Amino acid sequence: MGKDLPVSPLAPASFPDLPTIEGVEFAAVQAGVRYAGRTDVMLARLAPGTTMAGTFTRSATRSAAVLDCQEKIGHSDTGGAAIIVNSGNANAFTGKNGADSTHAVTSAVAQELEIEENRVFSSSTGVIGEALPHERITAKLSELKQNLSADAIKEAAQAIMTTDTFPKGAGAEIEIDGQTVKIAGFAKGSGMVAPDMATMLVYIFTDAQADQKKLQKLLSKLTHVTFNCITVDSDTSTSDTLLLAATGASGVNVDGNAAFESALHQIMLDLAHQVVRDGEGATKFVEINVTGAASNTDARTHAMAIANSPLVKTAVAGEDPNWGRIVMAIGKSGAAADRDLLTIRFGDILVAENGWVAPSYNEQDGATYMKNQNLVIGVDLGLGDGQSTAWTCDLTHGYISINADYRS
Amino acid sequence: MGKDLPVSPLAPASFPDLPTIEGVEFAAVQAGVRYAGRTDVMLARLAPGTTMAGTFTRSATRSAAVLDCQEKIGHSDTGGAAIIVNSGNANAFTGKNGADSTHAVTSAVAQELEIEENRVFSSSTGVIGEALPHERITAKLSELKQNLSADAIKEAAQAIMTTDTFPKGAGAEIEIDGQTVKIAGFAKGSGMVAPDMATMLVYIFTDAQADQKKLQKLLSKLTHVTFNCITVDSDTSTSDTLLLAATGASGVNVDGNAAFESALHQIMLDLAHQVVRDGEGATKFVEINVTGAASNTDARTHAMAIANSPLVKTAVAGEDPNWGRIVMAIGKSGAAADRDLLTIRFGDILVAENGWVAPSYNEQDGATYMKNQNLVIGVDLGLGDGQSTAWTCDLTHGYISINADYRS
Repeated sequence: MGKDLPVSPLAPASFPDLPTIEGVEFAAVQAGVRYAGRTDVMLARLAPGTTMAGTFTRSATRSAAVLDCQEKIGHSDTGGAAIIVNSGNANAFTGKNGADSTHAVTSAVAQELEIEENRVFSSSTGVIGEALPHERITAKLSELKQNLSADAIKEAAQAIMTTDTFPKGAGAEIEIDGQTVKIAGFAKGSGMVAPDMATMLVYIFTDAQADQKKLQKLLSKLTHVTFNCITVDSDTSTSDTLLLAATGASGVNVDGNAAFESALHQIMLDLAHQVVRDGEGATKFVEINVTGAASNTDARTHAMAIANSPLVKTAVAGEDPNWGRIVMAIGKSGAAADRDLLTIRFGDILVAENGWVAPSYNEQDGATYMKNQNLVIGVDLGLGDGQSTAWTCDLTHGYISINADYRS
Repeated sequence: MGKDLPVSPLAPASFPDLPTIEGVEFAAVQAGVRYAGRTDVMLARLAPGTTMAGTFTRSATRSAAVLDCQEKIGHSDTGGAAIIVNSGNANAFTGKNGADSTHAVTSAVAQELEIEENRVFSSSTGVIGEALPHERITAKLSELKQNLSADAIKEAAQAIMTTDTFPKGAGAEIEIDGQTVKIAGFAKGSGMVAPDMATMLVYIFTDAQADQKKLQKLLSKLTHVTFNCITVDSDTSTSDTLLLAATGASGVNVDGNAAFESALHQIMLDLAHQVVRDGEGATKFVEINVTGAASNTDARTHAMAIANSPLVKTAVAGEDPNWGRIVMAIGKSGAAADRDLLTIRFGDILVAENGWVAPSYNEQDGATYMKNQNLVIGVDLGLGDGQSTAWTCDLTHGYISINADYRS
């Protein structure tokens, strides 16, 4: 694959210091699935007592590993568990063979770690349509087991990168009833998807204790307002996976706990934003706040129509305060809008109101604002209380170069 | 706006010779609405007896001229009529002021040509959000009237261009019961929309005689399978307008006539394809044929998901036979698909079947095929009889340059 992309200008300064989660160990290894000279398989071992929750792509052509995870995730077993992830090959659109490869990997991990196979979750990311050389992964399981360490989370984050230009991590420590609960997670992804080279994968670990059904419900709710509100290019992966493992080692039950929900929400939002900040070719990070819509669903439809519009995204790339393109995106979204009630803001600058440009608006102010690296576009529909926020990046020559100039 | 774009590599060799339609005269003039040194207003005068039909954008933020046309189009009046179109200013998102400007233009045309104002149809295309200097248009009406000529259709087609790199025309002469019926039309558009500089406008004229309701029904049906099946960038204009004028001068009634329907269909398809061939930055013309879907609606959803996918379009630009991205687009479309029943073809080349790459497929054949300027991507879902075809172009550095590098 040999792409040597410069680190995104929107990347954080460094990988964060993450808390060590009791009950979780990580290892990474060079298995040569496709890439040479870098790690490409990571293993996470989860202690007995761990509760798992997950959310997955809704693609109709989802991959074998996703289908396998979806079958296993709903069980309330809390025995020992494991997560194994390879980069370089997505094992997607590989026919019946794909399921066989996934089974070969998860059964070998179960045997190596002496746990049940239905507690081994796997993901694969990379080239689509090629058979997964699963024997290269299973050949490394004993080395992975030997290397397991509670402190290797950054190495795990690095092993799952594909077109990512930086590893993405986030964590928190919170106090609940005088006891400490820790959360740490990592993610990969640099297109909302680029199915042959990228995919969004997210793994979050906590020492909290949780009921499986309640944890799953919380995770689904928070996914809806974090990872499901970001877009790089409107394309949807065959492999998107988010797994949350609660080891219970802290002894603190977090079912229904607001502080835990808030901390988990912040970590998911942070990781989601980092995926956008590593968007292919991105030079601007854009938040789109829609308020005053007829419903939250309508607000989300408008926000995503703006966030996915190639004309809005190229205007942002060109630092062009082209609010007409925002009006266009609202008009095409299909959700309710009344031209004469629309208000549009760039940051704090009032741009348009009452169906036309605001009398106070000055094009030079708009142009100066658009030079910022982080932008906020505000839209108020003037129709009701519905609101939604989406995050996206600009559409640049870099995106075309990564996806068109390069022949896989 | 001073963009001097090279003519699209996909442009036809020349503007076609179009039949002269009895009952229609054209004129074009330099009114300086925004552009200097070129024509920017065209007038078409339609003889008494003319029946009008039209289809329009479904945008919730549609322009004043579109709203005005929609109010007028359904009447079955067949008195004298007119179409007046300006480029340079879209008169869209201009508040209550927009409707006043449209009325100023259409009432002045009605007075100049001594016809009813509810028979004057107008369109405006160009910059969004700026007041239309309608007095520059009305000042030229007497000059336009003096210049009216049955042979000035190419001049009319040129006057409505914005970012278009060539004028677009198509026509036909057909025999019905031993009598000749003529059809001629022209179009503009180079993004499915770029709301500040482009919009799709189409005007078609025939000397056929037709009932208004039947003509409208036919036009709507044919729009669904022609102009509504093309996409350049998935964005939808605030101003898209298609008007069909039947002068009746031939004395041949075409209500329910299959030959007329077929000829009109071909002309609409030809003009729709020319819009795609002038797509911003386009270097490839791509037909997407979806068959075997659960329904025609599902087939259309899949076809448009493929046609709008930035990853498919950048792969085409890069001449990359990246069928994995087609699988991805099918998976995300939301319509029914079964991975293991999918068949994908590039032209006559079988690429994938039964959920995986076809055993006979050779990557080099795919790569050679993708070097063609005109491409056909075939997808069979294997689920039913639903079918649909969409047409699009590739996504290149040229699109980014036109929409991001250039500051309006």
